[in-house]
Amino acid sequence: MDRLFESLKKVSDKGNPLYLRDFLRTWEQDRDVLEAVVFLATQLRELHRKGHDLTAFTSGLAISNFRDHSTRTRFSFASAANLLGLEPTDFDESKSQIAHGETVRETAVMLSFLAEVVGIRDDIYLGLGHKYQEEFGAALTESFEHGILPRRPSIINLQCDLDHPTQSMSDLAHLISYFGGIENLRGKRIAMTWAYSPSYGKPLSVAQGIVGLLPRFGVDLVLAHPEGYDLLPEVTEVARRGASESGGSFEVVGSMEEAFRDADVVYPKSWAPMWVMEERVRIFQQGGTYEELEKAALEENAKHMDWEANEKMMELTRDGEALYMHCLPADISGVSCEHGEVSKGVFEKYRLRTYEEASYKPYVIAAMILMTRFADPLDVYETLASPEYGRYYL
Amino acid sequence: MDRLFESLKKVSDKGNPLYLRDFLRTWEQDRDVLEAVVFLATQLRELHRKGHDLTAFTSGLAISNFRDHSTRTRFSFASAANLLGLEPTDFDESKSQIAHGETVRETAVMLSFLAEVVGIRDDIYLGLGHKYQEEFGAALTESFEHGILPRRPSIINLQCDLDHPTQSMSDLAHLISYFGGIENLRGKRIAMTWAYSPSYGKPLSVAQGIVGLLPRFGVDLVLAHPEGYDLLPEVTEVARRGASESGGSFEVVGSMEEAFRDADVVYPKSWAPMWVMEERVRIFQQGGTYEELEKAALEENAKHMDWEANEKMMELTRDGEALYMHCLPADISGVSCEHGEVSKGVFEKYRLRTYEEASYKPYVIAAMILMTRFADPLDVYETLASPEYGRYYL
Amino acid sequence: MDRLFESLKKVSDKGNPLYLRDFLRTWEQDRDVLEAVVFLATQLRELHRKGHDLTAFTSGLAISNFRDHSTRTRFSFASAANLLGLEPTDFDESKSQIAHGETVRETAVMLSFLAEVVGIRDDIYLGLGHKYQEEFGAALTESFEHGILPRRPSIINLQCDLDHPTQSMSDLAHLISYFGGIENLRGKRIAMTWAYSPSYGKPLSVAQGIVGLLPRFGVDLVLAHPEGYDLLPEVTEVARRGASESGGSFEVVGSMEEAFRDADVVYPKSWAPMWVMEERVRIFQQGGTYEELEKAALEENAKHMDWEANEKMMELTRDGEALYMHCLPADISGVSCEHGEVSKGVFEKYRLRTYEEASYKPYVIAAMILMTRFADPLDVYETLASPEYGRYYL
Repeated sequence: MDRLFESLKKVSDKGNPLYLRDFLRTWEQDRDVLEAVVFLATQLRELHRKGHDLTAFTSGLAISNFRDHSTRTRFSFASAANLLGLEPTDFDESKSQIAHGETVRETAVMLSFLAEVVGIRDDIYLGLGHKYQEEFGAALTESFEHGILPRRPSIINLQCDLDHPTQSMSDLAHLISYFGGIENLRGKRIAMTWAYSPSYGKPLSVAQGIVGLLPRFGVDLVLAHPEGYDLLPEVTEVARRGASESGGSFEVVGSMEEAFRDADVVYPKSWAPMWVMEERVRIFQQGGTYEELEKAALEENAKHMDWEANEKMMELTRDGEALYMHCLPADISGVSCEHGEVSKGVFEKYRLRTYEEASYKPYVIAAMILMTRFADPLDVYETLASPEYGRYYL
Repeated sequence: MDRLFESLKKVSDKGNPLYLRDFLRTWEQDRDVLEAVVFLATQLRELHRKGHDLTAFTSGLAISNFRDHSTRTRFSFASAANLLGLEPTDFDESKSQIAHGETVRETAVMLSFLAEVVGIRDDIYLGLGHKYQEEFGAALTESFEHGILPRRPSIINLQCDLDHPTQSMSDLAHLISYFGGIENLRGKRIAMTWAYSPSYGKPLSVAQGIVGLLPRFGVDLVLAHPEGYDLLPEVTEVARRGASESGGSFEVVGSMEEAFRDADVVYPKSWAPMWVMEERVRIFQQGGTYEELEKAALEENAKHMDWEANEKMMELTRDGEALYMHCLPADISGVSCEHGEVSKGVFEKYRLRTYEEASYKPYVIAAMILMTRFADPLDVYETLASPEYGRYYL
Repeated sequence: MDRLFESLKKVSDKGNPLYLRDFLRTWEQDRDVLEAVVFLATQLRELHRKGHDLTAFTSGLAISNFRDHSTRTRFSFASAANLLGLEPTDFDESKSQIAHGETVRETAVMLSFLAEVVGIRDDIYLGLGHKYQEEFGAALTESFEHGILPRRPSIINLQCDLDHPTQSMSDLAHLISYFGGIENLRGKRIAMTWAYSPSYGKPLSVAQGIVGLLPRFGVDLVLAHPEGYDLLPEVTEVARRGASESGGSFEVVGSMEEAFRDADVVYPKSWAPMWVMEERVRIFQQGGTYEELEKAALEENAKHMDWEANEKMMELTRDGEALYMHCLPADISGVSCEHGEVSKGVFEKYRLRTYEEASYKPYVIAAMILMTRFADPLDVYETLASPEYGRYYL
């Protein structure tokens, strides 16, 4: 934890760049900032276990705006908000239309007069989701600068078309815990691979989140997917740059076997082919129905049914014992579907590990809230950690 | 209140058996424990009236999972959670499917990282509802034992197919208040009777809750229903055992008149015939539609339209003045339906009494939360009751 | 602020008439009381900006019951509740039926055992909406008087068929801020005018709220609408009386041009013709479908498409620079519809002003809560305003 604590100290000393800003994509943030978030998240997790009162606000709304389904991120956001003393409040707009322009601008302000944070998921339409978050933020900035909002609420990206930072940061915290320190990530071979699923149009953002984040911490990241299932070039470019700066590596291969070979960590996860994502946006913008696209997408997926993380595949990994990761819910062969991303046996072996992986998310979100709402997060941390601050329970 | 207070003292001294456990069915709990819950509930009610601050947590989620409609229990649960400082948070899953297996196990954990309690209503399918609560709880236990959950959240049964403990315990608190002490329940004749309703498939659990609980406190409980409307044998067995241990009595009769005769309390309430409940489960598990079953059930009900708590029926009770009870909403003849469970005049006479009966529920739930979350509930009570603890209002 | 502060002082000294009562219509309240609400609202807004902890309750539900769509009032209510320490809780009844009689009476009580306030919107049916609020309140009073409710929760009208007091009071606060003091409203010409919208059946209550409130503060209020779009006579009567008592004036004219001429403030806003509102109630009560009525209403509206607040129209106002007001969302020509209430250019010029106008609503609601829940609101204000009371942020 020493290096992570030093990062928080550095960020607090040099002027916290997240203060009153948004957390949208990990690759927009310095590594120090990311490490400070991980430090706070793991410390909040510990302090909560020890029964500390962690409320840092006496009131304030934490608004969530889910433009796609969510269970675990929804509850993680609500849990984080409540832990810090904010009121989780869902903005339940009609889910069928991504509104832009005037409506977004006005709605953003109308919701936010007493808000501290706004968590947004908008991950369905490639090239559009992150723009909604940016439009929302621009409207908040405008109204804040004109004195209409008392403070500029911070937007936390709960998954867009580009990144899923609360997931990737939880995954990072989990890996640091698993390997016993951030330094120990160096040289670890991590396989982020596509996997088969009988479902259509899953976002690219989980894979992009991993690929955009982990190479910055010295890992050897191997991305594997069938032809046509590429990630966005801007994200693989981030990965390449991150690897080069950290002394890690990034490569793309064409088979799950190749990626799994000698891997320390595997992350097999389905996503949609690029052309499906693009066609979906075209249909959305020009009108039309999705049935045919869905059929074609499922047929394309079905050609790669052998991309399953099963026992045979796991044997290829380092000592046959790589850590299996998943953002959940996984498509488990013979459990939630006939053929899926992972065999029943492999999933069951790592099931509780995936729960542990998920357990970091509420604290990662809470850490992001502290970082975006307090100029000096180190000071806040020290207050919350002090025995005098109070107990969670009576 | 002396005996109830002694029960709380005893429970706290000998080691609170509810601590970090679930409150699922009253008949799984010792009488001491139930009396401690009633004591806490009535005291919280009083302390709230006097303006005491009753928050016992600085944060934490109180999750509700309603797999059937609810208004009053929903608001009672939210009220109880808020009173103690927890955040009421509804988990709104699709209502059409009772998921079992992997999904329940995983979802339970994903929701619960920062939860203190989970209130569950799952009362539609006989033999299934309580299993969902148990599966949910087993998943929480597993993750707690593996260090994934910081604490084991407690499940509170907000009505299952077997029991409706927050209702029956509220009813018990109401009766104790009405008769001026728990000792005064001894020898009171209480008629839990079926009543006609033009609706189909109401759960057995309100009646079962009463029958499973009250005989343990020395009352003479008379259960009455038309042929075919039996309660589950395991519950009537509980009633028989409870009566025998307490010196009360339990009998089953075949007419409302017989049950009402000389009754001190009457509780006329509709429920479905056993064969309807069983057929409904079969259709649910094997697929099919419910229209024909509903039609047959309504026809069966219609044969017993004379099971109505009207003025003539009430005249049979002790001095014609038995206390009328209902969990609400009642089917009131000429008000909410043409013919129902109770005549307009009888209901109106006791309307405010039924509101008072309902008024205990938020406090009963709050008491269950305190009992399940604090090792020493007596100590918590004394803190909350002390004038120094603080005021509810500024 | 001196006069407003004096009003709060007077109200607190002479016995606060809102204490444990409802805030339903502004014209039921003395001018002192209204001024006290404005004072508290603007002060809470300032104190929140300065980072004061403004919690005045340790727990308690603030229930909202929206029988019509709402975004900004919904969030304003939730924000106000949370600011003061209450838990915003939505009662989500089926929106298709306005239930009366037994159901309302019982539901009101069942929700409210631990509630402090209940915010209700019921604005669709002319002559009915406000009755629902009154029935709800009567049920609460009855149960409080019988000792069933620990306190009588206060109802706050979040828009009924008659008035929209949280809107009109926010508008008043905005005007006082804009003109630099309540005294400066005297003699200001304010045009509340109908405007064209391609939508059907908008309530009269925003216009009625303005017309029923502002003339009491010495303004010269001009109401303009096409023939057949009259407001309720009881409300224009209120306006006339208010003007006469305050030394202001109230007149009704037949064209937007006439109203805009030399106006200091314009408030162009669509509402439905009286016959449409009446027919809608008839259909609701007697059964039937709304399609034909909607068609006829839209055709009627279309005859008045020239009632648009555009640049040419604004030139008629004082120095061409009247303040434009709107409750939002506005129907903006070329933005949210082809032809609407206001031209794109005019709206854009005043857009941020309308956001500022809206920014008062959470604080107006919070002020109403304080006024209705505390006998001595001046004392509460002084406590919240004192530096010792605590900080909003850690």
